[in-house]
Amino acid sequence: MNRFVYDALGGRVVFGAGTVSEVPAELDALGAGRVMIIASGSSIHLADFLSDQLGDRFAARIDQVNPHVPIEDVERARNLVVASSSQAVVTIGGGSAIGLGKNIAIRAPVQHLAIPTTYSGSEMTSIHGVTVDGFKRTGRDHRAKPQTVVYDPDLSRALPMRVTAGSAMNAAAHCVEALYAEQRNPVTALMAIEGLKALRAGLNRVVADRIDLVGRTSLLYGAFLGGAALGGVGMAIHHKICHVLGGTFGISHGDANAVILPHVVAANARAEPGVMAHIARVLGVADPAAGLFEMAVAAGAPSSLTELGMYEHDLDRAADIVLENPGFNPRPVELGWIRQLLDDAFLGRKPMAGSYSKKES
Amino acid sequence: MNRFVYDALGGRVVFGAGTVSEVPAELDALGAGRVMIIASGSSIHLADFLSDQLGDRFAARIDQVNPHVPIEDVERARNLVVASSSQAVVTIGGGSAIGLGKNIAIRAPVQHLAIPTTYSGSEMTSIHGVTVDGFKRTGRDHRAKPQTVVYDPDLSRALPMRVTAGSAMNAAAHCVEALYAEQRNPVTALMAIEGLKALRAGLNRVVADRIDLVGRTSLLYGAFLGGAALGGVGMAIHHKICHVLGGTFGISHGDANAVILPHVVAANARAEPGVMAHIARVLGVADPAAGLFEMAVAAGAPSSLTELGMYEHDLDRAADIVLENPGFNPRPVELGWIRQLLDDAFLGRKPMAGSYSKKES
Repeated sequence: MNRFVYDALGGRVVFGAGTVSEVPAELDALGAGRVMIIASGSSIHLADFLSDQLGDRFAARIDQVNPHVPIEDVERARNLVVASSSQAVVTIGGGSAIGLGKNIAIRAPVQHLAIPTTYSGSEMTSIHGVTVDGFKRTGRDHRAKPQTVVYDPDLSRALPMRVTAGSAMNAAAHCVEALYAEQRNPVTALMAIEGLKALRAGLNRVVADRIDLVGRTSLLYGAFLGGAALGGVGMAIHHKICHVLGGTFGISHGDANAVILPHVVAANARAEPGVMAHIARVLGVADPAAGLFEMAVAAGAPSSLTELGMYEHDLDRAADIVLENPGFNPRPVELGWIRQLLDDAFLGRKPMAGSYSKKES
Repeated sequence: MNRFVYDALGGRVVFGAGTVSEVPAELDALGAGRVMIIASGSSIHLADFLSDQLGDRFAARIDQVNPHVPIEDVERARNLVVASSSQAVVTIGGGSAIGLGKNIAIRAPVQHLAIPTTYSGSEMTSIHGVTVDGFKRTGRDHRAKPQTVVYDPDLSRALPMRVTAGSAMNAAAHCVEALYAEQRNPVTALMAIEGLKALRAGLNRVVADRIDLVGRTSLLYGAFLGGAALGGVGMAIHHKICHVLGGTFGISHGDANAVILPHVVAANARAEPGVMAHIARVLGVADPAAGLFEMAVAAGAPSSLTELGMYEHDLDRAADIVLENPGFNPRPVELGWIRQLLDDAFLGRKPMAGSYSKKES
């Protein structure tokens, strides 16, 4: 066993179907009296339900959540927290609603309880981001981590299949990259492997029946563990590529994850044979890249950048932007293979990492 | 998957042979200038080394650590922290040194960096205890959890085999009871299972060669995970019995753990067949109780209360004290089987939980 560092973020997780009804008691446990609710557009009914449940404690509400957390929205929300004397913020939705809550929590003395309805995992991390003058700034701050997260798989049953597939592949990417991240450690690896198993099992069920509660529970559990992995270690080149595709070329984060992850696994395979054998075993496949490709396709995710409206003449520029500040990756980042990877992803070629027998891990 | 709650304690773990040399840098990361060192008797050489390493930052030192944390020692140590303007306490040793550090941290504004040299796991929990007028009071307080823990397996190579065996069985008991604790949850279970595997593998190696670094690393890793399990959930009847044997009858905690754990596993087997099958699989045995019994005996731990100087006529009283306030246990606590368990443990009978085939889990 090599030397390792494990930095655990504290926090409480309440997980299970129907746990959304425990939110008032969880707010009591946080010592929060008056509460502001922030809900994404698709979560308005739940926000109504919670506002009713809170009764006199309900202090304010924001139903309009923009992507990428514009600083103007943060200022407005922070002012509303102060004006309404709110002691806690409850966020309901995906990364945008939760991201707004995180930005409030680092600017005002409020507790933050998050109710995630997607698989982005943002709620388990201290990573916060805000868009100022068109540029997104990100950082880590322990105050950004919600104190309590309520995972209620009932809430994700309505998620459309396309969104489900992309969001689940985003969670899978958190698990995969945590296994070869620079700060990798055996505890985060335990959670990442367990998360990958749960995502695989959950997708299999939800593909057959979109509202299957066992499948939705498994997906949300995998998303929680993927978020914990993301919160515990940095990521690698996959996440860099997806952020470039999103930030500069407008491709949704879920779609980008579904298309790119199998190719990154293929590209990193020789640098990390032990990790790849482990992933193959967890997915029950011989080739981990092909296995992830098939998992995404079976779930109805896109498999090529061309079908997402990317232009071939933009691939050079995308590769250049990735190379500007690539961050850590187990295989040293070079223009050659990054450009080839984007080409393969553009055309939706099925990637191959090579076969990893069970004995290798 | 059932509803669960997972309460994570935050904190940093630095793990690996030689990491004790990173302590000054870790204290920098905590923002701690002046430092007080608390070392158990067997750790004085290490305390000398650290005092030198710290140079001008070294502020004070306590080399006398009594068991069960007397309140007088806490007051004296707290006064010394204030008088020496220490911003951090470094504790080196087992549960007694670390316990003193925890008690200071809840009474004075200091950071706490712990360097455990045994497998007690106390450093990963917010549980603190102090002895006042002969009675030990315990509680949980998040301030009691050390901010940073440095696990250096080199330091535990000198641990005598008898102490090693008892301390490792104490860590194993944390893993085992976490699996059927009232607040059990899948994340703590992941760590507990991984911890049990590591303890098993480590004991095997250290029995053959007491100073084997691979074995010592595996044991310390298992102890860390056992501590995390103990910090994450409450325990059950095994820990209650061991505390009665220690508190009222003077039996060392490690010895009590080694003797009692197999019998408790046998007693709880029917109430938790899934957990027992999992334990059996991890240990590579058919019968989990017999497997734990053999693991302890092979490591040189005692196997009976009679060899620890307990009197047979005290068994009734021990059972009565356990029954006074037994706490949670999966099998409802009744005098009949507790008294029988103590009788079996007294005589060192080999317990049997029954056979758990690999298919059952």
